[in-house]
Amino acid sequence: MAANLVREKLAQATNILDELGVDLWLIVARESDVLGDPSLPLVVGTSVTWDSFFLISRRGEHVAIVGTGDVENIKQTVAWDEVIGYVQGPSTALLAALERLDPQHIALNYSTDNNMADGLTYGMYLRLQAMLEPTRFWERVISGEPIASRVRSRKSGEEIRRIRASIATTNEIWEQLAEWIRPGATEREIAGFMHEQVNRRGLETAWDWNYCPGVTAGPNSPIGHAGPADVTLQRSQLLSLDFGVRQDEYCSDMQRTFYMLGDGETAAPEPVERGFRIISGIIRSAAEALKPGIAGWEVDQVCREAFAREGIDEWGFALGHQMGRSVHDGGTLLGPRWERYGQQAYGIVEEHEVYTLEIGMTVPGFGWLALEDDVVVTAIG
Amino acid sequence: MAANLVREKLAQATNILDELGVDLWLIVARESDVLGDPSLPLVVGTSVTWDSFFLISRRGEHVAIVGTGDVENIKQTVAWDEVIGYVQGPSTALLAALERLDPQHIALNYSTDNNMADGLTYGMYLRLQAMLEPTRFWERVISGEPIASRVRSRKSGEEIRRIRASIATTNEIWEQLAEWIRPGATEREIAGFMHEQVNRRGLETAWDWNYCPGVTAGPNSPIGHAGPADVTLQRSQLLSLDFGVRQDEYCSDMQRTFYMLGDGETAAPEPVERGFRIISGIIRSAAEALKPGIAGWEVDQVCREAFAREGIDEWGFALGHQMGRSVHDGGTLLGPRWERYGQQAYGIVEEHEVYTLEIGMTVPGFGWLALEDDVVVTAIG
Repeated sequence: MAANLVREKLAQATNILDELGVDLWLIVARESDVLGDPSLPLVVGTSVTWDSFFLISRRGEHVAIVGTGDVENIKQTVAWDEVIGYVQGPSTALLAALERLDPQHIALNYSTDNNMADGLTYGMYLRLQAMLEPTRFWERVISGEPIASRVRSRKSGEEIRRIRASIATTNEIWEQLAEWIRPGATEREIAGFMHEQVNRRGLETAWDWNYCPGVTAGPNSPIGHAGPADVTLQRSQLLSLDFGVRQDEYCSDMQRTFYMLGDGETAAPEPVERGFRIISGIIRSAAEALKPGIAGWEVDQVCREAFAREGIDEWGFALGHQMGRSVHDGGTLLGPRWERYGQQAYGIVEEHEVYTLEIGMTVPGFGWLALEDDVVVTAIG
Repeated sequence: MAANLVREKLAQATNILDELGVDLWLIVARESDVLGDPSLPLVVGTSVTWDSFFLISRRGEHVAIVGTGDVENIKQTVAWDEVIGYVQGPSTALLAALERLDPQHIALNYSTDNNMADGLTYGMYLRLQAMLEPTRFWERVISGEPIASRVRSRKSGEEIRRIRASIATTNEIWEQLAEWIRPGATEREIAGFMHEQVNRRGLETAWDWNYCPGVTAGPNSPIGHAGPADVTLQRSQLLSLDFGVRQDEYCSDMQRTFYMLGDGETAAPEPVERGFRIISGIIRSAAEALKPGIAGWEVDQVCREAFAREGIDEWGFALGHQMGRSVHDGGTLLGPRWERYGQQAYGIVEEHEVYTLEIGMTVPGFGWLALEDDVVVTAIG
C-alpha cells in the first residue's frame, strides 16, 4: 500500500514536471528522522540518515544517491529505479547523474512561502552550493515550490479515502464526547478523555499531543493553541474543542463547540444561538465559494465580509488551510493577504485539494464559539 | 520537569554565549510539528505554528516573537521572560527587539556540518534576509553552530540520568531477547518481539520504527539500516541487532550480537570467538582513548588502526556519534576525516558528552558481528 502510494505520487510528480516544463526536481535531505523534508514520505517513502539526493526527472527517471547504509531502505520501497550508494561523499555521484540528465532547470526543495515545500536546510543549501557552484548546474537551480506544492495538494483517490476515514473516526469521537461531557469537568480532564479515545483506537493526534485537542471552556480560558488548563467547565458556558487524529498516516482537523445548558434551560440563550447561526452560515458560504479557479484570499474574504456585516471583530486567522498527510498541508491558503501568509493566500484553488474551513468568535459572557469542517474540492466546487 | 530542563538549558546557553563572546543566539522556526529545529525542545520546550523568532542573549534575556496563536504555548513553558505575539507579520517586532538588544553578532540556527544545529530552512533564511538586509543587522549574522552544538552536547545531570534510564531499559530488553531467541525465527519475527517489548513499556523506538531494531540474521542478510526481511535465523549463525528506545524523551542506541550454537556445539567456533575478541577489544581501546581534549577523528583512528593490524576490511562508518534527545545527537563525531562527515570529525571531545562506540565485521560463513555501547565522557575519560 505504502509502495503503491509512493509510485502513484512519483507518477504524479512526473506529470507535474511536464505540465510546468521543468526537467528535474531535486530533493536534498539528511537525517530525516530529525528534520525530514515533507515531500519524502510522499515520493520516497522511507527515512534517510546521510546526505541524500533524490532526482525525479520529467522523463520519468528516479535516481537516489544516498549513503551506503541507506541503500537497502530505499531499494525496499520498490519505487526507485536507480539507487546509488556512496561511502566517502556524494559529490562524484551527484555530478555524474546531473551530467547524464543535463536538466535545464533544477527545482530544489525550498520555498519562502510554503513551509511544506521548504525542507532544505540552509546548511545543506550551502553544501550543495559548494558542490555545484563550479559547474554549469548551479545557475539552473530554482525553487521547487510549484512541484512540491502540487504533488502534496492534489490528493489521489487513495489519499482522499484515507482522509475520509480519519474524519469518520473523529466524528465518532465527537459523539463519544457529547455523551460523556458534563459541567464540572476541567479542561485537562476533557483533553484526557479525548486522548483516551485516541489511545483506545491505536491512533495518534493530528498535531502535538499537548495541544490536540485544544480545549476552551467558558469565557475565562486562554484562546488559541494553548494547552488545556485547570479551568472548570460550568453550566451556561460554551465548550470549544480543536481536534483531529492521524489514521493510516492521514489527518483530520475539526472544531466543535458545545453549549452546557443552565438550570432550567432547554435551549441556548439568544446570543449563543445567534453565534452558531452566524458561524455555520459563514462556513456554508465559504464552502459554496470554494471552487477550482478562485484565489485563496477571495474565499477568505467572503468570510471576512460576512463578519463585518454582522458587526463582529475581524477573525485573526486564515479561514482555512489544506490538510492531508500533515494537518497543515501547505500550498494555497484560504487566508487574508497579510505578511505572515506571504504568497500562499494568492494561490489558486484546484480540484482534488482538501481544505479546512474554520472560524470562531467570542460570545461575551459565554465563551469561545468555533466550528471547523474539512472539505474536498471537486470539479464543480 | 520539562520546564526545569528548559530553564537549565537556557541558563547553559547564556554561559556558552559568554564563553564564545557572542551577543545573541537567534533561532528562527515555523510549523515545528512538521520541521522542528532540533534546539527547540531543549531551549523552548514546545511547538510553534507560525514564523517564530527566539532571541537568547548573552546577558540572559529571552525574547520570543511568535504568532498570536502560539503566545499561550510559549507562556505556559514558564521559561521565556518576554513573549511578543503578532497578527499580521513579525518584522516590526523583530526589528524592534534587535534595535533594543543591538547585538554585535547574531548567531543563526544553521550549520553546514552539524545537522542538529541546522534547523533553519533555506526558505526561512530568505525571509529573514528580506527583513534584515536593509538594516545593519544582516552583516552581523553568523552560524549558530558552536552554540547549538554545545547546548546539545553538554548533558546536564538530569539529561544523563534520563539517558542511563533509557539504557537500563534496553539492557532489560536484551535479556528478554536472549531468553526468547531460537533458531527458526525470521528477522521480521525478531523485530516483532522487540517491538512488543517497546509497546509493553509504553515507549517509542529511538529511531524509525521500521528500522529499529535493525536485524541481521546469518550471512545472507543485507547489512546496514535495512528493515528486517523474511530471512530465517539458523543454527551456527550470528544474529546481530541495532536497537534503542526513547524513554522520557532521551535515547539509547546499542548493538548486540548473538551466536546460535550448532548441534553438539558448546561454544562458538574460533572465527566467531576471534571476532568477538577483536570487536570488544577495539571498543575497549576506543573507550580508553575517549577523553576531554582529543579530536573525534583521533578516537576513530584508534579503531581503524586496530582493524588494519588484524587484517580486516576497513569499517565503513564512523566509530561513534553523540546521543541524547536524539539518537544521532550531532556535534563532534568519532569518525574519519571523510567528505561526508565534514567538520564534525574535527570536533574536540568535551566533558559531559555522551557517545556511542560501535563497530562491526563480517565473519565469513557466519554473518555480521557488531557491538555498540553508550558512554559518557567524564573529566578523566
